[in-house]
Amino acid sequence: MTLSLYSDEQYMQEALKQARYAFEEEEIPIGAVVVLNKRIIARAYNQTEKLQDVTAHAEMLALTAAANHLGNKYLQECTLYVTVEPCVMCAGATAWAQVRRVVYGAAEPKFGYRRHGQLLHPRAEVVSGILAQESESLMREFFAQKRK
Amino acid sequence: MTLSLYSDEQYMQEALKQARYAFEEEEIPIGAVVVLNKRIIARAYNQTEKLQDVTAHAEMLALTAAANHLGNKYLQECTLYVTVEPCVMCAGATAWAQVRRVVYGAAEPKFGYRRHGQLLHPRAEVVSGILAQESESLMREFFAQKRK
Repeated sequence: MTLSLYSDEQYMQEALKQARYAFEEEEIPIGAVVVLNKRIIARAYNQTEKLQDVTAHAEMLALTAAANHLGNKYLQECTLYVTVEPCVMCAGATAWAQVRRVVYGAAEPKFGYRRHGQLLHPRAEVVSGILAQESESLMREFFAQKRK
Repeated sequence: MTLSLYSDEQYMQEALKQARYAFEEEEIPIGAVVVLNKRIIARAYNQTEKLQDVTAHAEMLALTAAANHLGNKYLQECTLYVTVEPCVMCAGATAWAQVRRVVYGAAEPKFGYRRHGQLLHPRAEVVSGILAQESESLMREFFAQKRK
């Protein structure tokens, strides 16, 4: 597959790279990046185990890093890319940050926000299914290894 | 009013003290404490302005501090006291941390989690309305000053 420059797929590949770092560190493999004006301004992966902190999801860390980078907690012009559908907590965080575009890979029917309705910013555009198979495979591989 | 030792009111007074610190620092005045075996193991107040970080709600900071204190991200035996009804993000965080008891003061019809349904841990007990008037007055005073 060729990735065109500045495509959702390209940024999602970067989020997937983060997810793989999580995998290597025995964290649930979810990664995220925040993009502003075509530039990645924050990258993060899930670190709930290492930090022993449930709030250390990839999205949360990425939003905090992006806000630190900008010196502004509002991220209206940013796009959040995350490999798996955000949970309720992370969806709520994107709403507070007024993130207007959320792109995710694999659906998460059990822990994703979607089954609770519209929890993102009211004006947020949502794109789903970007590199979903890659994200899902990584998650499946992780939990298969865990069960061993 | 007399406060009996170890009552919800007593712990909520401590959360209110945190909320007043937020007020003094021109933050939306919300405070939280986490209690385990009758002892306060974490105290925090909203710092979204100072940190320019939407994730820095009182509850989030208190949950992270409690997990750091215990070296364990699960807080099943803990009670979270917070002066105002938690938002979606914070409700989601308490669910991940498996907090089984959430006590809050004032209802927050617009930004509270409740209008989105049950977002806390499925086994969480919820107590509301503890020192609600005090919490609400503090919030009202804050926003009245802001409008000036």
